[in-house]
Parts: sequence; structure tokens; C-alpha cells
Amino acid sequence: MTQFINAKDALVTDAIDGLLETSGGALVRLDGYPHIKVVCRADWDKSRVALISGGGSGHEPAHAGFVGAGMLTAAVCGEVFASPSVDAVLAGILAVTGPAGCLLIVKNYTGDRLNFGLAAERARAFGLKVSMVVVDDDIALPDLPQPRGVAGTMFVHKIAGALAEGGADLDAITAAAQTTIANMASIGMSLDTCTVPGSKKEDRIASGMAELGLGIHGEAGVEQVAFVDAASAVEMVVAKLAPRIGTGPHVAILNNLGGTTPLEMSVLAHQLATSQNARTIKHIIGPAPLMTSLDMHGFSVSVLPVDDINMAHLSAPVTLSAWPGMAEISPVKTLPLPDGLSPIKPIPSENAATRALLEKCCALLIAAESDLNMLDAKSGDGDTGSTLATAARALNGALDRMPLADLTQLFRALSNELSQTMGGSSGVILAIFFGATGDACANGKPTIEALRMGLERIGQVGGAQMGDRTMIDALDPALSALSDGVGAAAKAARAGADATASIGRAKAGRASYVPEENLIGHNDPGAEAVARLFEGLAKAL
Amino acid sequence: MTQFINAKDALVTDAIDGLLETSGGALVRLDGYPHIKVVCRADWDKSRVALISGGGSGHEPAHAGFVGAGMLTAAVCGEVFASPSVDAVLAGILAVTGPAGCLLIVKNYTGDRLNFGLAAERARAFGLKVSMVVVDDDIALPDLPQPRGVAGTMFVHKIAGALAEGGADLDAITAAAQTTIANMASIGMSLDTCTVPGSKKEDRIASGMAELGLGIHGEAGVEQVAFVDAASAVEMVVAKLAPRIGTGPHVAILNNLGGTTPLEMSVLAHQLATSQNARTIKHIIGPAPLMTSLDMHGFSVSVLPVDDINMAHLSAPVTLSAWPGMAEISPVKTLPLPDGLSPIKPIPSENAATRALLEKCCALLIAAESDLNMLDAKSGDGDTGSTLATAARALNGALDRMPLADLTQLFRALSNELSQTMGGSSGVILAIFFGATGDACANGKPTIEALRMGLERIGQVGGAQMGDRTMIDALDPALSALSDGVGAAAKAARAGADATASIGRAKAGRASYVPEENLIGHNDPGAEAVARLFEGLAKAL
Repeated sequence: MTQFINAKDALVTDAIDGLLETSGGALVRLDGYPHIKVVCRADWDKSRVALISGGGSGHEPAHAGFVGAGMLTAAVCGEVFASPSVDAVLAGILAVTGPAGCLLIVKNYTGDRLNFGLAAERARAFGLKVSMVVVDDDIALPDLPQPRGVAGTMFVHKIAGALAEGGADLDAITAAAQTTIANMASIGMSLDTCTVPGSKKEDRIASGMAELGLGIHGEAGVEQVAFVDAASAVEMVVAKLAPRIGTGPHVAILNNLGGTTPLEMSVLAHQLATSQNARTIKHIIGPAPLMTSLDMHGFSVSVLPVDDINMAHLSAPVTLSAWPGMAEISPVKTLPLPDGLSPIKPIPSENAATRALLEKCCALLIAAESDLNMLDAKSGDGDTGSTLATAARALNGALDRMPLADLTQLFRALSNELSQTMGGSSGVILAIFFGATGDACANGKPTIEALRMGLERIGQVGGAQMGDRTMIDALDPALSALSDGVGAAAKAARAGADATASIGRAKAGRASYVPEENLIGHNDPGAEAVARLFEGLAKAL
Repeated sequence: MTQFINAKDALVTDAIDGLLETSGGALVRLDGYPHIKVVCRADWDKSRVALISGGGSGHEPAHAGFVGAGMLTAAVCGEVFASPSVDAVLAGILAVTGPAGCLLIVKNYTGDRLNFGLAAERARAFGLKVSMVVVDDDIALPDLPQPRGVAGTMFVHKIAGALAEGGADLDAITAAAQTTIANMASIGMSLDTCTVPGSKKEDRIASGMAELGLGIHGEAGVEQVAFVDAASAVEMVVAKLAPRIGTGPHVAILNNLGGTTPLEMSVLAHQLATSQNARTIKHIIGPAPLMTSLDMHGFSVSVLPVDDINMAHLSAPVTLSAWPGMAEISPVKTLPLPDGLSPIKPIPSENAATRALLEKCCALLIAAESDLNMLDAKSGDGDTGSTLATAARALNGALDRMPLADLTQLFRALSNELSQTMGGSSGVILAIFFGATGDACANGKPTIEALRMGLERIGQVGGAQMGDRTMIDALDPALSALSDGVGAAAKAARAGADATASIGRAKAGRASYVPEENLIGHNDPGAEAVARLFEGLAKAL
């Protein structure tokens, strides 16, 4: 599978450099590429306890993305899914540890434990105070003596981070980290494995199946289950966590394992927030990608019982963009729909001349139905005539409800009527035309100017200009000529409509997808409709 | 393809509810599901100009994720890739617009333009002040009269958002939005199309190819190009943007189209930050998913020339977790490697008894090589004997360099020596054992107690306990008995080693993956090595 990387062996170093270059100077790294990949806070003065985490890469933003005030002091990065070396960890410890000492936060994988552990020994031989905690929050295998460390690690980063930032000593921070680790639990579910750069993707999970309890390195899950929907996925995960959830308040981390879309993550958040079996989860961190597994299409839930003290640490603000913050889970609040969604019903009024004009327009459009359909068949789906005729028939039947004596209200009523009875974008465009014309009338503009303002608005909104092979090519010249009478307008509309036959490329609307040879020689059906309308009116008046 | 959703027609409403439930009460929505999906700021008081955006869903976090102080007032959401209706937009406008009016920020798609446009007309008929800008930043097709609106929309949200939050009037905000739209440019590249829920994924882009200039709805790109690597991908995108990049400073948005891993995004950020052809890009927003296309494995770059005024608006802080903030692009800063990475060379010293003891230990391990290998073949790759013998030969040759007269320094030197000459996790474990023992000696502990502290440390770090079928099963009883003499220790070690033959399930190390029937009846090779060592010493002393 193609990926946005350069040489595979430069993937992690390129990515770290990208992180640093876009950190606004907040992050630095130790020299020693490619062997030593240690990201540090640029503003670190060794005045407090240092927090160091890390491990294999491929879990971004963990861990380098959480280096900053209030979270980690440094992250020691290995290659993808491979522990960093003893030397790399030792370099990190020596670089950031002052008299207050440092805490190593290590996920429970043999390589990480050993390499961080030996580095800690080496550092102690230099007289440094070094503590180490091992995160083992995964409950996928309840009888496994060595549970894996997964996304619950973020609880430790945040709580220890807040304590360290506040000046707590190494013993207090280590104890808080250990308590957090003992109390928390995590489990993940995925619909697919991950794509390790340079390796063929394992095709282990069949479509329609999900893996429950899988690790963050693509390790197989505890069981494959039939995937029903997001609701049952969350219930399965919550059921696994249930033995570890007490009656007091809890915080959950809803972690994107990498390849789950934000839409899906929000659906999962909805299910978690409304699950009857997760009622003690009162606050949530995420949904967000925190501890990913490359592009794995999955999620994990971590839970931690909370009291006032760790709540304060979890909610302490940090400025890291990778940290989504913590939010109280709350039911959806809805505002009532505003008044005015149903268009104001106009008060009917009579005007014989206006009625006659509208009746004539309707008759003209109904008469043109089949001609316009045939024309539209050249460039579209052949329904322009029917669309207009249907709207015209409906309008004809609605004239008794129309405010025929009040032009402002009439234009607005036409707008409402057409948007309801005329399908497709043409209905909306004409509704905008008459709506804007009515607006202009309301602002005291004379009718022809108001119509021109309506035309301008559909140009702005719809994006079509003169020469784009739309009805504007006839309507624009017609309205320009209208002050010289309907006959002049009709002539101008006809000339405009006929000119569309030589426009080989439509620039707006559906005809823009039609090849030139299908268009040349045929008038645009919308422009033709306008021309016939004005021609018919000119004859009749 | 399976996805974490429930019923497809509840996807967007479920996701919106999930967003609201995890917003900490910051977001509310209008009543009217499923037709009307409008997300609003909970704290909105209509005292300033309202900003409304929206369009089809599938671009999360855009737009609902950007509703909040300093960005949008409301987002009107359609179904996936489908414009919201006129009624939905109108409901949004009526709900949030006060006397200061509102600005609609609409991406340039016909459906959005028409539906937002008609809703604006309707709202104006209620006497509201409504402006609308159309975002058309995509430069994929340079001669297209209707460029699409893509991730540059975020520039408009942020600049208009900062102005509105600061109390600017509608005309000023509209003008700033229009200037931003006129000046910015965007283009995307993807390695794959996106998976529209309920539809089969289009298999348009062959492996090894990339599409340049594709849209955010999976529309085909302008051209397919051979994908070489991340560097050339960024250069292709930068080359397309070049005609739109001036000589002054620019801000770039580096947008994840959805399915690109954070690692890849950081690699792309590195390429953009170091591209000679993008030198005028001084600040960056991202990399982050801002305007996604479901799970599309791609990215886009948007550029905007900046001055003091729009820089202030772009950098104004907002508390939305979806907004990554803006950072100055800066070269990587490295700290020199700390002193002390090379272990301190001990000062050699002589002690005949210690030398004899170590020589005996080495000889015993060398003699046991093939027996231990055979034993290891039952549960591992048959190299325990060779690993120990190799280390023993190396140690034998290094005795002249050892501080034989100083136990603290000797244990530390053994730690360094073994970590360098003994491969695999056993080398690291023994290095931790001797390191911690040396530490304890340095703290004044007597030798046997120091050795026990070394043992404790490898339990903590490696995670193995008595009964886990490791060398600890012999070492622990041996050290416990050592105060009664080497003979007692040898007996205890032998009993411990023999007991491992009846442990059917290893709980740590590689043997934990081996079936019970392969283990029962055979001693653990590590424990056997310890027993032979003590037995040999007991005979010799």
C-alpha cells in the first residue's frame, strides 16, 4: 500500500522533524539521529521532576505529541512498533533530569521494560533519582499476568504531568502514577488491522467481523465477533469494562486507533454517552486520536475512577493541540425551532391586469412544454419543459391565494410558490430571483430595477454570468430592454437565447458536463423559455 | 466495508448528538431532527454578527466542530455529501441572527449556493441583515469558472470568527471574508478515494498512483500521477500553488483529508517546512484533520498571504479542540548529546579470589553450553547455552580491565560488559541485575543483600516472579540460602531449577508462547544455568 513517506528507514526521523518544525519552537530534540530520537520541551529548566515516556513509534500523537508543559518532559521514540535502545533512553534521562529526578512512564512490553529499565540503572549509577512505572491497562485477556499498556497511558501522562508541573516530588508523582495504573482499565475493538510501512497488510478480519481486545501493534484480538452496529460495539466494550467500573464517578478516554473517521468516532461517543451500562462515566477525554495504531480502523475505551484530586489533574489546562481536553458528558440540549420557518401566508388581493399577465405566462410555459423538453434532451435529461409546465399549472391554480394587488408581497409569494412546486435547482434559482425582487420592491425600488436586482442576486448566488449558456443569457438582455417596452425585451431575449446555440461550453449548471458537439446548434432550454415568455407577452399585450 | 455506524440514515444525527454530548455543554442544536440539523453555540446572545457555515456532512470536524467563541456561531449540516435544505439553513439563520446580522460562509457547490442563497432571501424577507460569501479556493482546474470550496474555508472561519468575536460589523466581516477568499488557494492530493457509507468504494486510484487536485467528495482529480514519495508529493502540490504564492509571508493549512496517519502527516509537514519552493510560507495551521473527506488517504495544502491584521485574526486563541492553532515554521533545533552515554571506564584493579571466582563461573557456563542449548530447544530457539557461553568467553578475556578489588565498581562493570556482549533480553536482564546490585553496594548494602536487591529490580523491570519459569526460579532461592553458604545456595538453586520442569505455563519471556506439552518435564534453561553455576562453585570452593 502506498503511503506518504520517503525512505522507510527515514520515516520516524522525518516525522519527528516535521513535528518540531511545526511546533512553533516549543520542541527540540537531542542530536544523534537516527539511533537516538528524543524529543524534549524547549523551555525545560530541570527545576522540577522530569517525565519521560516513549516506546515504538506508530502511536502518534503518543508520545512526542504530548511533550509540553503539564504533560511530558521528553519522549524517547523507537522505530515503528520497536522499542528505543538503552542508549536512546539513557540520553533522554541524562538530558532532562535535574536534582528532582525523573519518572519513566513505560508501557508493558518486554522490550520497553528492559531498555527503559537498564537505562534507569545506568542513570542511577550517575547519581540521578530515577523512578519507573509500567502501564498495563489492557483488560482484553483477564488472566494474562502481563497485560499490555494501551491508551490508559494518557491518564498517567496527564495526572503525573499536572503534578510535576505543580512542583510535586518524585515519590508523590510515582505513587500517583502507580495508583492511576492500578485503578484504570482499557479495551479496544477494530474492524481491520493496521498497515505497517514496508509490510503487506495482514488480512485477518473478514468484512462484517470485528476484533475485540486487540493490541496497538496489530496483535490479534482476544476474539472475533460479528459486527452489528456502533451501538452493540460500544455495549460489548462496556460489558468487558463493567467488572472494572465501580459505582463512583469515572472518566473515560475514547481513543481513535487511527483509521476511524471523525463521524464514526462521534457516533461511538454518542453510544458511550447514552449507554445505560456506562452511567458512572461522567466525563470524557476525546473522541480523539491519542494512542493510535497507525491506520487501524478501531477505537478503545479507557476508564478511571475519579475523585476531586485526580479530576483537578485531568482537567488542568495544557496548550498541546493533540490533547483534546476533558468534557462533562451531558444530554443533548435542543432549542425550539424558530418562528417563521413556514412562509408567511400572504393576504390574497385582486388585480385584474396582474392576474391576466400571470395567466398568460403560465399558458405560454405550458404550451412550450414539449419543445423545451426536446431542447433539454440535447444537453440534459429532457425535463426543462415539464418542470416549468408543472410549476405553471400549480401557479395557475394558486392565483386566488396570491396578493395580486401588492407587488412586493406578490414577488415574495411567487418565490415561495416556485420553491415548493418546482423541483431541482431551477426552482430554487427562480425562488431566489423573485425573493430578491420582492426585497428590492420592499426597499422602494421601481419594478424593473427590482427585477434587475433579482437577476444580480441569482448571478451572485448561482454563480452564472452572461455567456454561461443559462437562462440569464436571455433574461439579462430582456430586463435591460424592458424600459423600452415588452416588444424590445422580447427581441433582446430572442437574440440572447439564439446566441446560446453557439456557446459550446456551458460554464454553470448540468450542461457544463456535456461535450461541445452536443451543445452547438441548440439553444439553451432555460434561455429559450425566457425568450418564448417575452415573445408571447409581447404578442398578447 | 464495515463502519462504526448504526442505521445509515441516523449516521449524521447520531454523530451530531455525540458531538453535543461530549462538548461539555458548549453546543446545543435546534429541534427538528432528522430534517433540520443545526448546531449552535450554547452561550450565544445575538449581541454580535453571527457566522453560519455548513453543507454536506463527511468533512468533520468541519463544520460543527468549529462552532464556538471566535469561530462559527452555527453549523447547518446536511446528510453525507448532500447540501442541507433551504428550511434547515433558514432555521439556523433565524435562530442565531440578531440586529447585527449574519454572514453565511458557503463552499462553492451548486446545492449549497442555492439552498443557502434562498434561505438568505427568506431571512431578508423577515427584515434580517444577511450576507453570504462563496468560498472557491480549489485551484485544481485553473480554467474552471466555478472552483470548488475546500480547506481554505478554515481561513475564512477563523478570520471572520475573530472579527465577529471582536464586535466588527457585518460589512467589515463580509469584506474581510471576501478578501480572504480572493487571496487564498488550495489543492489536494490523495492515494485513494473515500468510503461513502452505504456505497461500494470506488477503486479508481491504482496502487502506486496518486490523484492530484481531487475534491472533498471523492470527485476524480485533475490528473493521476505516479507516486514517488512524500517529498515529491509535496513538491507537486507546491508547484501547483506556486503561481498563487507571492513574495511576502504566507500561512499554510496542512489538512488531513481523513485517512492519513499522523506519522505521514508529520512527514508531509517536514517536506512542506523544508521545501525550497515554499520558503514564503512562514506559519502553518496543522497538520490536522480540518476539512476531511471521510476516510480519504490524502492531504491538502491551502495558502494565504498574510499581513499584521489577518495574522492577528488567525492567531487569536480559540478553545475548540478541533482547531490546532497556528505555529511559526522553524528549523529543527538539536541539543548536544549529554555526557555519560559511554559508560565510565572502570579503573582496573586486582583481587585474586574474585578473579578465580569469575574465571570459575565463566568456565562453568562455557562447559554447560550444549546442554543448555538442548534444553532451550524444547521451548525456544535453542541458543541459551551459546548466548551465555559467548558472554562468558568475552568476560574471561576482559578480566584484566575489571575493577576486581572494588565490588561496587565490579558489579557496574559486569553490567556494562554483559549488556554489550550478551544479545537478546537475557543480556539486558543480567545487566539490570548487576547494575542494581552495584547501586545497592554503593549505598552501603552488604553483598548478599545487594544481590537480592538486584534480583528484586529485575522482577520489577522484567515483570517475572517466582514460578514464572525463568531463571528467577533458581536465583531467588539460591540468594535466600546464600547466607548459609554456597553449598546451601547450590541445593536451593537445584531444587528451584528442577521445579520448573513441572511448570506447564510460562508467564513471562518467550516460553509463554509455547504449548504446555513442550514444557512439562524439562527444566527452564535459564534456571538450569543458575543451578549449574552454584553447584559448580560449591564443588570448587
